[in-house]
Amino acid sequence: MYSVPLDPDLCLSSPLQLQVSPALSERLRVFESLRKKRSNEKTVEVTGRPLSVRLADGRTVEGKAGITTPLLVAQSARVKGALLSKVNGELWELGRPLEADCELQLLGFDTLEGKQVITPFPESWVPKNCLRCIVYFLCPSSLQPLHSSSFPPCFPLHMQVSPVTLANHPQSSGVMRLLAVAFPGEKDKDEWEREQEEARKRDHRRIGKDQELFFFNDVSPGSCFFLPKGAHIYNTLTDFIKFSLIAVLRLTFLRPRPALNVTRRLTTPSSFLPGFTEVVTPTLYSTALWERSGHWEHYSENMFTVTGEGSQTYALKPMNCPAHCLMFEQRVRSWRELPLRWADFGALHRNELSGALGGLTRVRRFCQDDAHIFCTPEQLEEEIVACLDFVKTVYQVFGFSFHCLLSTRPTPCLGEPELWDTAEQQLERSLQQFGEHWELNPGDGAFYGPKIDIQIKDAIGRQHQCATIQLDFQLPIRFNLQYVGPDGQIHKPVMIHRAVLGSLERMIAILAENFGGKWPLWLSPAQVMVIPVGGDSESYAKQVVQQLREAAFMADLNEDQSATLNKKIRSAQLAQYNYIFVVGEKECESGTVSVRSRRGKQLGRRPIEEVLSSLTQLRDTRSNQDDF
Amino acid sequence: MYSVPLDPDLCLSSPLQLQVSPALSERLRVFESLRKKRSNEKTVEVTGRPLSVRLADGRTVEGKAGITTPLLVAQSARVKGALLSKVNGELWELGRPLEADCELQLLGFDTLEGKQVITPFPESWVPKNCLRCIVYFLCPSSLQPLHSSSFPPCFPLHMQVSPVTLANHPQSSGVMRLLAVAFPGEKDKDEWEREQEEARKRDHRRIGKDQELFFFNDVSPGSCFFLPKGAHIYNTLTDFIKFSLIAVLRLTFLRPRPALNVTRRLTTPSSFLPGFTEVVTPTLYSTALWERSGHWEHYSENMFTVTGEGSQTYALKPMNCPAHCLMFEQRVRSWRELPLRWADFGALHRNELSGALGGLTRVRRFCQDDAHIFCTPEQLEEEIVACLDFVKTVYQVFGFSFHCLLSTRPTPCLGEPELWDTAEQQLERSLQQFGEHWELNPGDGAFYGPKIDIQIKDAIGRQHQCATIQLDFQLPIRFNLQYVGPDGQIHKPVMIHRAVLGSLERMIAILAENFGGKWPLWLSPAQVMVIPVGGDSESYAKQVVQQLREAAFMADLNEDQSATLNKKIRSAQLAQYNYIFVVGEKECESGTVSVRSRRGKQLGRRPIEEVLSSLTQLRDTRSNQDDF
Repeated sequence: MYSVPLDPDLCLSSPLQLQVSPALSERLRVFESLRKKRSNEKTVEVTGRPLSVRLADGRTVEGKAGITTPLLVAQSARVKGALLSKVNGELWELGRPLEADCELQLLGFDTLEGKQVITPFPESWVPKNCLRCIVYFLCPSSLQPLHSSSFPPCFPLHMQVSPVTLANHPQSSGVMRLLAVAFPGEKDKDEWEREQEEARKRDHRRIGKDQELFFFNDVSPGSCFFLPKGAHIYNTLTDFIKFSLIAVLRLTFLRPRPALNVTRRLTTPSSFLPGFTEVVTPTLYSTALWERSGHWEHYSENMFTVTGEGSQTYALKPMNCPAHCLMFEQRVRSWRELPLRWADFGALHRNELSGALGGLTRVRRFCQDDAHIFCTPEQLEEEIVACLDFVKTVYQVFGFSFHCLLSTRPTPCLGEPELWDTAEQQLERSLQQFGEHWELNPGDGAFYGPKIDIQIKDAIGRQHQCATIQLDFQLPIRFNLQYVGPDGQIHKPVMIHRAVLGSLERMIAILAENFGGKWPLWLSPAQVMVIPVGGDSESYAKQVVQQLREAAFMADLNEDQSATLNKKIRSAQLAQYNYIFVVGEKECESGTVSVRSRRGKQLGRRPIEEVLSSLTQLRDTRSNQDDF
Repeated sequence: MYSVPLDPDLCLSSPLQLQVSPALSERLRVFESLRKKRSNEKTVEVTGRPLSVRLADGRTVEGKAGITTPLLVAQSARVKGALLSKVNGELWELGRPLEADCELQLLGFDTLEGKQVITPFPESWVPKNCLRCIVYFLCPSSLQPLHSSSFPPCFPLHMQVSPVTLANHPQSSGVMRLLAVAFPGEKDKDEWEREQEEARKRDHRRIGKDQELFFFNDVSPGSCFFLPKGAHIYNTLTDFIKFSLIAVLRLTFLRPRPALNVTRRLTTPSSFLPGFTEVVTPTLYSTALWERSGHWEHYSENMFTVTGEGSQTYALKPMNCPAHCLMFEQRVRSWRELPLRWADFGALHRNELSGALGGLTRVRRFCQDDAHIFCTPEQLEEEIVACLDFVKTVYQVFGFSFHCLLSTRPTPCLGEPELWDTAEQQLERSLQQFGEHWELNPGDGAFYGPKIDIQIKDAIGRQHQCATIQLDFQLPIRFNLQYVGPDGQIHKPVMIHRAVLGSLERMIAILAENFGGKWPLWLSPAQVMVIPVGGDSESYAKQVVQQLREAAFMADLNEDQSATLNKKIRSAQLAQYNYIFVVGEKECESGTVSVRSRRGKQLGRRPIEEVLSSLTQLRDTRSNQDDF
């Protein structure tokens, strides 16, 4: 509750985490038994009566009640690849005879229902050493070829076998997990294989190792050690958010919002002025706080606990919100102070099971770009729009496209229906005003308030949910938060939880895979490699490195005497240096450098000052461009 | 071990933490019994024999063996205020007869020994409600007036009474702690009282509350909540250190060290180029790590522990060093990579007893500006000088004077004597090269290596120890750290622990009291207050605030219609805004602001661009100056 969900189903960034529902075989069993039962029922009463079938593309096919099946319609209408159908919106087997005039949809593998009907499952579980175990598909009988040649001739299979670790049993259980994927045809399989290969190349764990960004160690399972280059990315991301959030404080007294100039310190577009301030809060809190916030009742099994003096129990914070509520209630607040917007980058801990841990996508220790907004109900709409603006600006920098989901009240939920009505309408108005694509996701809000989740799409088309904007009616009640309004009366503020990157750890994994390890200049931990050619050029090369470092670039020098120039260039490219500067006698004499980009493009011999100024411009505008 | 000590005796920043040794009454008892014993011994054999006493100022006084006492010498030589003496370097009571020709030092209250001889202790402990309890002094009999009028006529007393909390008994023990201070005379007492009053005014807890910088809450004892203004100071300090450490990477291949230009990003003097990189490490580690590092054996009672999956015990890190050793051993290291210098600003936890907690000076959760250097033995000397240079540069910014203490091997200690010899000589050579005042502190090193502690003196003359530079021979052995030398052989690196600010929390307390809440512009969380005079000037005032905020200044607007101009100015001064800009019709027309400083000095009407540029200059050079 109260935070960015780190749902395992969303962790698609790792290629080895495809999920298969464990209940598929059970589902097939039920399906077959229902089918059997139905075949024993009396057949459609009036057989042979003519009927008219209207297809989704507008065509009409004539048939006979009790005889014509969707499969026969598909054949006569030359529709290929149908796996299932809908008759007047109701799911209908291909082999089940139609009963009357109807609307017919033929569903192929490109539909959710079509995919679901193709259910791979293992014939047997092989407990140990099952490296060579073979997995068979059983298809529903209606899909067998005993019916039609329009079905896919094969269901190629890909599988992964891994040992299953049971909770509280760190040693091997002897049980193996078997994951399989099915395709309607060879072409789809080939495409999937290409995608998998691309994902393997981009696996953030491989990039993290190759580029010496981070590592894990058994002494702290699920907590990442960020080496200097990884910490550089970590801090650059944090600074990006911090500067954007904090450096320019929004002038709440100036309306309408002015278009400010970009300042020296802030290199992000300034169309938004979020005006957050940062706070620093403790890590350990006594159960008294978690009981008050409700976490102890709903979330304690995910919390690490510590016993302190006098047997008092403390827990490592899994979220920042209760601490911010304590800050709010520090003294009487006036409407003049609102909205209060507090950002917190403190480390959070959640006690995930060791079997659930995987690289940076699922960890026990992480930081969020977390913030809470306390505002009046009247300010809510504008605050939400500002949050959405901020999300958009950040994601544009990364090159992510995105869409929003408005999740409304679930059953059951807490709070008056009128409150939910108003809040949902306000969120909807904010989304309209924001103007980007959004969808309704009814019933999927948190029990404490509605929310907007933002789905991003990365460079290879995978979807991730990182940002979230959540309303909370419950914490202001639990902490009895109050402010004095312009009317002199006591009012209750609205609380917004919001994060853009989500967990920094997981965002680093997503970005590593999105860029395939080719970090844009501003995020890159290896920006320039300087290679001297010939003995005299070495001191000039050192001078160039020095100038780069003075301008805060991550620059290195290849002094290796034994390697050839080509080998040095190749090795710098493999190490993903954004630029390679080759300097020889000519460059030394003219104060220039010969620039080539990571992708091998030669950008020519240029004066060092010009290059420095171009690189600074690329970095400070957070450009994703290589050429200059 | 292995870190910046947070010794309660060093926590003098809080005026209420004066320490009195609990063993004083015991010491007096022993003193008196020894004295009694000695008076029963046979008197000096040859009495009446002439002797010659040479005083410290060069004068000579004649006396008689067995008769002349240091007290009589003091009277005849008209030396006032003597409390104790040294005869040929040996401590000697004033009333004990001299035995032969000797060198005599008369020690007054201005010497350590003189102060120690004045030992206040309570006649009785009053268990409860002892607000009016009276404390008496008992002086050694030799110091009674029954001897000389040269002794102070009174020992004025100041005391503080507080309840004593016993370990594992959070409820009151019923025992009261009584602290007392003695003076040789009224003048000293008056001076001390003035100092105390000044310290009370500067108490960081009062400043923290008045300026809304931070607070504490019982849900997390010993962990500070930094409100936005406190977090601003916290982050500004951290950034100062980070930028200084990291932004310009030292070019280890360039010797001698060049004098670089100050870059746009780095506004500290660049005479040093420490070349650290930052790392980010976990918070929780299993006992396996702490056993390996030796912390489990020596330090576990100060560590918070957590029980995780499979009953594995984890502890919250109290220090960063073992994590950095894990990073070092991640792969084979070459001499070409050394020195490796890693900075870590992660939160540390130490389980201090609740009775020991006090404001920001003694906390359970804190961050250090911690770093570890792994280098070859040959690099040690230069690394230490660079650390000392860095300390000096940072302390100059704060205006602290300082001196260094070289603490050598204690008994017992770990490691070969030759290793200690070499290391102590290297530290001494580094101190000589550094060129600032230093003293030897024999036997006070850590058992794992010698160290240099740096004592600072704040604006009201109080001493604090924050920075430390410690050699460590033990951790490289325990972690079996290795690098391949130029000879192709395996070598063991030397490890240096070092911190400059020490704990950020404690440094904020010291700085708050040092500046008396009048933060210099660059650290200030309240930099400019803009006050409009007259209705029309309000929109111009908003524009000025906006310009200030765009330039990343902490600027506010006083819109209050009800207060007078003088009241607004006064309230901004009390809130410690560095500058107050008054803007009326004239300023609006001419694009100027009327500037006055926090201390009331009027700096005249100036163009806004000129003021912005001056303030930026003051801030970015971290000047402590008010005028511009």
